Amino acid sequence: MTKIIDPYGTELVEDYAKAIKDFGLEVFMPSPFPEPNRVMRRGVVFAGRDLKIIARCIKEKKPFYALSGIMPTSEQIHLGNKIVVENLAYFQKHGAITFILVADLEAAAARGVSLEEGRRRALEFHIPAYLALGLEPKKTIFYFQSENKDVVHFAYEAAKKITLNEFKAIYGSADPGRIMSAVTQVGDILYPQFKERMPGIIPVGLDQDPHIRLTRDIVSRMKKKRFFAPSSLYHKYTPSLDGSIKMSKSKPESCISLPEDPKAVCKKIKKALTGGRDTLEEHRKLGAIIEKDMVFELLKTHLIEDDAELNKIYEEYKAGRMTSGEIKQLACDKMTAFMNDFNAKLEKYKKIVKDLNFVKFS
Amino acid sequence: MTKIIDPYGTELVEDYAKAIKDFGLEVFMPSPFPEPNRVMRRGVVFAGRDLKIIARCIKEKKPFYALSGIMPTSEQIHLGNKIVVENLAYFQKHGAITFILVADLEAAAARGVSLEEGRRRALEFHIPAYLALGLEPKKTIFYFQSENKDVVHFAYEAAKKITLNEFKAIYGSADPGRIMSAVTQVGDILYPQFKERMPGIIPVGLDQDPHIRLTRDIVSRMKKKRFFAPSSLYHKYTPSLDGSIKMSKSKPESCISLPEDPKAVCKKIKKALTGGRDTLEEHRKLGAIIEKDMVFELLKTHLIEDDAELNKIYEEYKAGRMTSGEIKQLACDKMTAFMNDFNAKLEKYKKIVKDLNFVKFS
Repeated sequence: MTKIIDPYGTELVEDYAKAIKDFGLEVFMPSPFPEPNRVMRRGVVFAGRDLKIIARCIKEKKPFYALSGIMPTSEQIHLGNKIVVENLAYFQKHGAITFILVADLEAAAARGVSLEEGRRRALEFHIPAYLALGLEPKKTIFYFQSENKDVVHFAYEAAKKITLNEFKAIYGSADPGRIMSAVTQVGDILYPQFKERMPGIIPVGLDQDPHIRLTRDIVSRMKKKRFFAPSSLYHKYTPSLDGSIKMSKSKPESCISLPEDPKAVCKKIKKALTGGRDTLEEHRKLGAIIEKDMVFELLKTHLIEDDAELNKIYEEYKAGRMTSGEIKQLACDKMTAFMNDFNAKLEKYKKIVKDLNFVKFS
Repeated sequence: MTKIIDPYGTELVEDYAKAIKDFGLEVFMPSPFPEPNRVMRRGVVFAGRDLKIIARCIKEKKPFYALSGIMPTSEQIHLGNKIVVENLAYFQKHGAITFILVADLEAAAARGVSLEEGRRRALEFHIPAYLALGLEPKKTIFYFQSENKDVVHFAYEAAKKITLNEFKAIYGSADPGRIMSAVTQVGDILYPQFKERMPGIIPVGLDQDPHIRLTRDIVSRMKKKRFFAPSSLYHKYTPSLDGSIKMSKSKPESCISLPEDPKAVCKKIKKALTGGRDTLEEHRKLGAIIEKDMVFELLKTHLIEDDAELNKIYEEYKAGRMTSGEIKQLACDKMTAFMNDFNAKLEKYKKIVKDLNFVKFS
């Protein structure tokens, strides 16, 4: 399975294999999707639910939607958000009606960010950042959760369709705040179908799967097949620069956020865990252990678009002709270019944010 | 305690005494309240929470509010609703800023009444009915729960202040739908304080006490004393005409609703449980057992305003000079007059419902 999942041999860590089995996911195969994007081609996207119907919508040019949310809790996003946006942009390019909701209600309840502050952060940073990462400004539909009465009203209805024990089975625990947030997210996930029933794809990190399961359960209990159960797409976590499974702000020295000062990022990259050998002599002889190399991981997942270019680096590094130092310098250069480009786009999109397509609610 | 509670000797049934003890209620005493109304004077109102602060607001003419909700599930109300409205009208007359919310969101979630249908029922029946029962049209503030974003947003915040086990301790059980409804009601109860902190009184049936307790618990956990804990006022259930503790639509032959055809109501009254003796001779000799008499209960709680008039009936009936048949005929006549008056007022207020003071939300 590993080979199919990731042509560069990064191991499908036990957690991902277990998740596929435990959650009943499908292994993601890029073949049914036209022109799969970087993360689809390279095993970063590794699983999904009901993907066939989305592939068919693309092929037959039938209506479907793609949706994701912005949680305006800080003025940075992480590389996982970047992957989600890149996947959204992929589906948008292939015909999906694309929705971005600002989860200001949830940010207020869960993190104490006032609705005003959440709105400001979304307008001044998150939305421009999502556009900078590839969404089409004119083709993306935005809304604020706190303004969307339809979603909130639906949340009340959705709550009636699930018992406490079922909720606990999905989320592991159940407290009133979590329940409110979760059923509201169910409303968000289905919102594009309120007017017209159609398939939809929700690209998420694995930790968001409970919302997908809850939504699918609730949909299955609704009378008259009001909704298609949402399809979903899962990407692997971007590993921490120190080699642990997931980058986390709790370890800032091993975590890259957007935006971040390129010099500071380069410093972190220079200290990252690589698959280089202890001595240059050994490295030349044995080559790098690429599946342990966090810098190659960055190049593969985020920084190199062209497959031939990445393949060449892979071969050179694996054969020991490229060193870890060279890989690090390359990643640093690419990351600096990326950050500069991101920042320039961010400034550009900040200026047009008011002209975007926000859903108006009466 | 019984005597203080009810001067006409209707027993404070075990459930009420137990409720006072278990829920930590205060026994209601009419004395601190100026010109107590019929149900306050006659032991129908039997308990409360934090009543002193309300009596003080009345005495010192300080701002306070009274609030109740309309659940637009059918186009009838019951005699318990009537008592609540009469208590609201009492506080309104004595200075309370009075709020009536239409719980259309809850009716939609809990009973499948669409928001449109709930709105229609509230405008065409419930609101005119509440005015017919004594609220001042120009002094009452109305809102629809589904339009009140502030209440819904607050519900998310409130949900964070309570654990699942605390919720279960209050409500006996916890399912997601109930949790959503309950925290929304907390928002409703506190809504009049969103702009200005002030005491408030919520007249309720005993079965609504969990909402009061939840609200008081949540208020106590909010920082900066944002809210006064709500005061509350409890009335006894109107007993079923067959003598059981609570009128219920599940036994229509023992239940009186508003509006209802007076002839049908008279038929029910004629079959009601009374405290009359088995034979006329015995009745004249022993007199009626008034504390078992459901028709006297109706006169006392709902149909006779004047204390002297009620006292006279009490004495005559107790002494056996009035018969159960006479009491029934009296109740039938009074109820017919009441129903006719109610219907006439209902028609009158239906015509002005659009000019009432509805809160506008942006």
